[in-house]
Amino acid sequence: MIITMKKDATKQDIENVMRQLKNKGLQIHESIGENYNVFGVVGDTSQIDPKRIEANPHVESVVRVSSPYKKASRMFHPEDTIINVNGIKIGGKEKIVVIGGPCSVEGKDMICHLAQEVKNSGGVMLRGGAYKPRTSPYAFQGMGTEGILAMVEARKKTGLPIVTELMSADKLDEFIEYVDVIQIGARNMQNFDLLKAVGKTNKPVLLKRGLANTIEEWIMSAEYIMSEGNENVMLCERGIRTFEPYTRNTLDLSVVPIIKKKTHLPIIIDPSHATGDWELVESASLAAIAAGADGLIIEVHDCPECAWSDGAQSLKPQRFAEVIRKGKKIAEVIGRDM
Amino acid sequence: MIITMKKDATKQDIENVMRQLKNKGLQIHESIGENYNVFGVVGDTSQIDPKRIEANPHVESVVRVSSPYKKASRMFHPEDTIINVNGIKIGGKEKIVVIGGPCSVEGKDMICHLAQEVKNSGGVMLRGGAYKPRTSPYAFQGMGTEGILAMVEARKKTGLPIVTELMSADKLDEFIEYVDVIQIGARNMQNFDLLKAVGKTNKPVLLKRGLANTIEEWIMSAEYIMSEGNENVMLCERGIRTFEPYTRNTLDLSVVPIIKKKTHLPIIIDPSHATGDWELVESASLAAIAAGADGLIIEVHDCPECAWSDGAQSLKPQRFAEVIRKGKKIAEVIGRDM
Amino acid sequence: MIITMKKDATKQDIENVMRQLKNKGLQIHESIGENYNVFGVVGDTSQIDPKRIEANPHVESVVRVSSPYKKASRMFHPEDTIINVNGIKIGGKEKIVVIGGPCSVEGKDMICHLAQEVKNSGGVMLRGGAYKPRTSPYAFQGMGTEGILAMVEARKKTGLPIVTELMSADKLDEFIEYVDVIQIGARNMQNFDLLKAVGKTNKPVLLKRGLANTIEEWIMSAEYIMSEGNENVMLCERGIRTFEPYTRNTLDLSVVPIIKKKTHLPIIIDPSHATGDWELVESASLAAIAAGADGLIIEVHDCPECAWSDGAQSLKPQRFAEVIRKGKKIAEVIGRDM
Amino acid sequence: MIITMKKDATKQDIENVMRQLKNKGLQIHESIGENYNVFGVVGDTSQIDPKRIEANPHVESVVRVSSPYKKASRMFHPEDTIINVNGIKIGGKEKIVVIGGPCSVEGKDMICHLAQEVKNSGGVMLRGGAYKPRTSPYAFQGMGTEGILAMVEARKKTGLPIVTELMSADKLDEFIEYVDVIQIGARNMQNFDLLKAVGKTNKPVLLKRGLANTIEEWIMSAEYIMSEGNENVMLCERGIRTFEPYTRNTLDLSVVPIIKKKTHLPIIIDPSHATGDWELVESASLAAIAAGADGLIIEVHDCPECAWSDGAQSLKPQRFAEVIRKGKKIAEVIGRDM
Repeated sequence: MIITMKKDATKQDIENVMRQLKNKGLQIHESIGENYNVFGVVGDTSQIDPKRIEANPHVESVVRVSSPYKKASRMFHPEDTIINVNGIKIGGKEKIVVIGGPCSVEGKDMICHLAQEVKNSGGVMLRGGAYKPRTSPYAFQGMGTEGILAMVEARKKTGLPIVTELMSADKLDEFIEYVDVIQIGARNMQNFDLLKAVGKTNKPVLLKRGLANTIEEWIMSAEYIMSEGNENVMLCERGIRTFEPYTRNTLDLSVVPIIKKKTHLPIIIDPSHATGDWELVESASLAAIAAGADGLIIEVHDCPECAWSDGAQSLKPQRFAEVIRKGKKIAEVIGRDM
Repeated sequence: MIITMKKDATKQDIENVMRQLKNKGLQIHESIGENYNVFGVVGDTSQIDPKRIEANPHVESVVRVSSPYKKASRMFHPEDTIINVNGIKIGGKEKIVVIGGPCSVEGKDMICHLAQEVKNSGGVMLRGGAYKPRTSPYAFQGMGTEGILAMVEARKKTGLPIVTELMSADKLDEFIEYVDVIQIGARNMQNFDLLKAVGKTNKPVLLKRGLANTIEEWIMSAEYIMSEGNENVMLCERGIRTFEPYTRNTLDLSVVPIIKKKTHLPIIIDPSHATGDWELVESASLAAIAAGADGLIIEVHDCPECAWSDGAQSLKPQRFAEVIRKGKKIAEVIGRDM
Repeated sequence: MIITMKKDATKQDIENVMRQLKNKGLQIHESIGENYNVFGVVGDTSQIDPKRIEANPHVESVVRVSSPYKKASRMFHPEDTIINVNGIKIGGKEKIVVIGGPCSVEGKDMICHLAQEVKNSGGVMLRGGAYKPRTSPYAFQGMGTEGILAMVEARKKTGLPIVTELMSADKLDEFIEYVDVIQIGARNMQNFDLLKAVGKTNKPVLLKRGLANTIEEWIMSAEYIMSEGNENVMLCERGIRTFEPYTRNTLDLSVVPIIKKKTHLPIIIDPSHATGDWELVESASLAAIAAGADGLIIEVHDCPECAWSDGAQSLKPQRFAEVIRKGKKIAEVIGRDM
Repeated sequence: MIITMKKDATKQDIENVMRQLKNKGLQIHESIGENYNVFGVVGDTSQIDPKRIEANPHVESVVRVSSPYKKASRMFHPEDTIINVNGIKIGGKEKIVVIGGPCSVEGKDMICHLAQEVKNSGGVMLRGGAYKPRTSPYAFQGMGTEGILAMVEARKKTGLPIVTELMSADKLDEFIEYVDVIQIGARNMQNFDLLKAVGKTNKPVLLKRGLANTIEEWIMSAEYIMSEGNENVMLCERGIRTFEPYTRNTLDLSVVPIIKKKTHLPIIIDPSHATGDWELVESASLAAIAAGADGLIIEVHDCPECAWSDGAQSLKPQRFAEVIRKGKKIAEVIGRDM
């Protein structure tokens, strides 16, 4: 951490800041010149809040040199984390996984049938919403427990592990019992109590990036989960909010190489929520694979126009199969299997 | 709701969409011309999800004419809502309220002392964080229950009602017992389970706008709380996330006249989180009053450089008093009391 | 165009709006119901400014059904435009082109040498800045005419057509004489006088998307050029400005299928300016090809740390060759040549 | 400027960077510790491009301590710049100025009549567009020279100085002869050739902030004008582009205290373009004055629904007079005259 004092800071002002840091067990390296009054802080600075130091009126700026996360950091954990979901491995040089399924579970028969279609098309996990975060209180809120049990039935029939969103810690027991991957949605990316709760389980977690969260904040949310003991975290990009109205969100594929450089965690791309338009999903999916993603999570529905939610962004099963078919070839080019 | 069909939609395609809507008890008004195939839908369209209709491949666009919220809407509730917090009235033509206090409660003596300073300066409510949403799991997370009890003590000494953030529904009983206004933070603006939980109480709620949420989404979150029965909702703007790095966020003061036009709820401005810099707080506070806000919530600290969080944006008590002194005069110009 | 009047609009108010439109030779289709007062406008509505109609206090909303552009529109020109640059064809099902070269021309020897490296690596055109738009007036502003002439020399030696940025219409003669593709930079995307000026030439134009411009505004800028007679326009995405600080900009690859759907023009991707970091360029380049782009424009430099500008985002020639090598294989998967 | 080298940088790597800087006449202060390899650079670093140093693969980060602008900087010019437009003074503690007028000049009678209304209402300068930057090539592009001459006529009748937008350097002579304040529009904020051209005149310039430009980039554009010799620059905030669709742009009033802290130039607010909605203009105008702005530029039209452009955001003269009436009282509260 590099601290620059203001030009008019007195010797006493500087010593006050230094003392505060030394009291926390950190070492201080001397200032580099009369014009600058800059000093370096060495030690475990992840415990230090730069904003708190900047609150000192004599401090000009505080710049972190090391990252504020540790458990998620590639620096302290150079090998890729491989997450094992009922035998399916995700991350590192493992096969690129494709997760398919409807936005919302709409009934047992529907999800069982669709799970079979996802499997036949080459999908290896089943997604489906039972608890749905909806902007409007009057919109369909999901089937709840009944939806979870319908997914369990679909898993029984197809063997596909199930991924579904947890919105509240009070449903955690249900998720631990029935679900294979707990999804934390974009709107809850900084619901820190929920992060801590899933951090105390050992279930794999799919952590979506918030609509307006930086990459660093996103990794910090992974760090929340990991710091509680659960290191099975997959990051999932689903588009960020920008000024462009044509797409639902703007898919930021630069996160793929960045997450791989900064962390050891798998990175999954959700082209359905990112674009909000099924006509754009194939292009975004192939781009994600070429960019180096470890997996895709795609909305699939037999009859998009009858879907209870998000039909406009759902692929029909045969298009989903087509995306996988092309994706496999692109994976090969970049030295991956899918 | 106005639905435009694609040019190549057949008679049958159009009838399918119409039938779907009629089945929900809505009336359809006939198409306006061979070139367009546009029709209007009359009735309670707030139950209809436009995205679901757009999923139909024969539909070109769906445009809402009426707003998707009702309880929050000025149209269905023309008079201003006045919220009563222990006798202090907020909204309508009532006095503009100023809420002051530290980012975090740091101890009983500290908060009692500061509460007295806030009161002496002209503040009428006390803010302070006991449960703190922090980007890093290693940062100070708040004093928890001990912090809440310290605020209760401060209220006993000064009479100031207390405002503090609820991060998780499992602390709701504690908040119902001790707290006067429940704050829902920006990161939880779309934590719908939390919104429903506070909607079942009758405590006044201060609902902060999410960092990247539109005004309509924000009002929909108020609607979540109100649809559960709790109509005591105040909206609080605290800046949105933009590309500008100089300020912590960009304060969007246009919300003041917009919220007043669209809803009947009070609107409070938080200049401290919006700017992130105490040097900008006075300018933003006076602007907010001139814009027509019903209140301000400002961070105040005796020793900003010693604050456990957000010191850089805290005012010292005498500056806080100065803001109130000038604010009162501006309030007068626009026909309000403060 | 669909116009919705406010509920309290009188018959007279509605007739006033209708008359205004009929005076412009447009046809009006009757209103669709007593609750709504909606009417459709048929004819050449691209001449109508929706904002002007919305200025009428009795109008609730104006929604365009047809797009505001014509010459750029796929609807009026279903076949792909193929642009011919000295025999190199761009667009449609033609080979994907790769344009390489330095940010700035730094001398005749330098650009001639680099042009040879670009050619050896598989690049088919040479980029290089002679007139440089720089945020600071104190930064290197480009070599000007001398730089243009150095590029001409490089073309003579390698046969590669040259692409360079025009910042001011008063240099147009120089560009017409010497340059093969005129680049309009992001900062000038809405410099309408410059667009009109290049629209009067018949030189191919590479039109970069502005940092904060919507896809529709970008197509409208192409329309400016085309409406003056020059239909040789290629669109170039180079990232948009968002809140994310890690990358210089956020590359929006969704534009690839959107531009192809809405227009008949070629779409080129610039991964260097989008990411601002050479370590991210390969991932973004391969993603762009997989997404369906018609070309790439990549910064290449022999010695990035000695570059006079933008070194941090430049690839060394052997890495550039590697990107092309992998890109060719991805192109094959999606049925394109490169 | 503080440069941090990567941990694995060798002595030779560090010396290479140092040598490069010393060759530019800068002084280097020694490194502050074996863990860090940080050094300070002292001297005129405004000539150095931080990105160029970051291009070195051994450099971790480069942080500027001093600002990249000089002529615009408050540090080198502590007193406020006061701009004199035909005797009207702008900036410092001078009267807050109000500039009013239509978006577009629509004829000589129209502008003369409106100029009189603006004057009667308390406006002290006349705005009006003769050359109009329009998204669509098919929209009204302004009356051109005829519009300028009509404004000259209006000035003759009312004495109000005239402000109008210059879009292209080839009209500069016309502007020097006829216009009192040259406006550079948001879309041309980084049209550097245009900035240099107006920098060579001595006309006051009103420099609008670009839609997606940071405050620093905006000041750098002022620096372009000033570095050519013209120090008569007023900055004008007109809203930035964000994700919020309700308003045309998001007005960023934090620029008022920031511009005053960082520079010595006057800051003017344009509430009309910022909001895009006349119903929001009064609130934004009063807020701007309370925030400390040196002036307002407001669109005024006799018949907004007949305006040839931007009618939706224009005030009728009596509302404009009302804004000024209230604004004067707010100015008084903060110790200014208006």
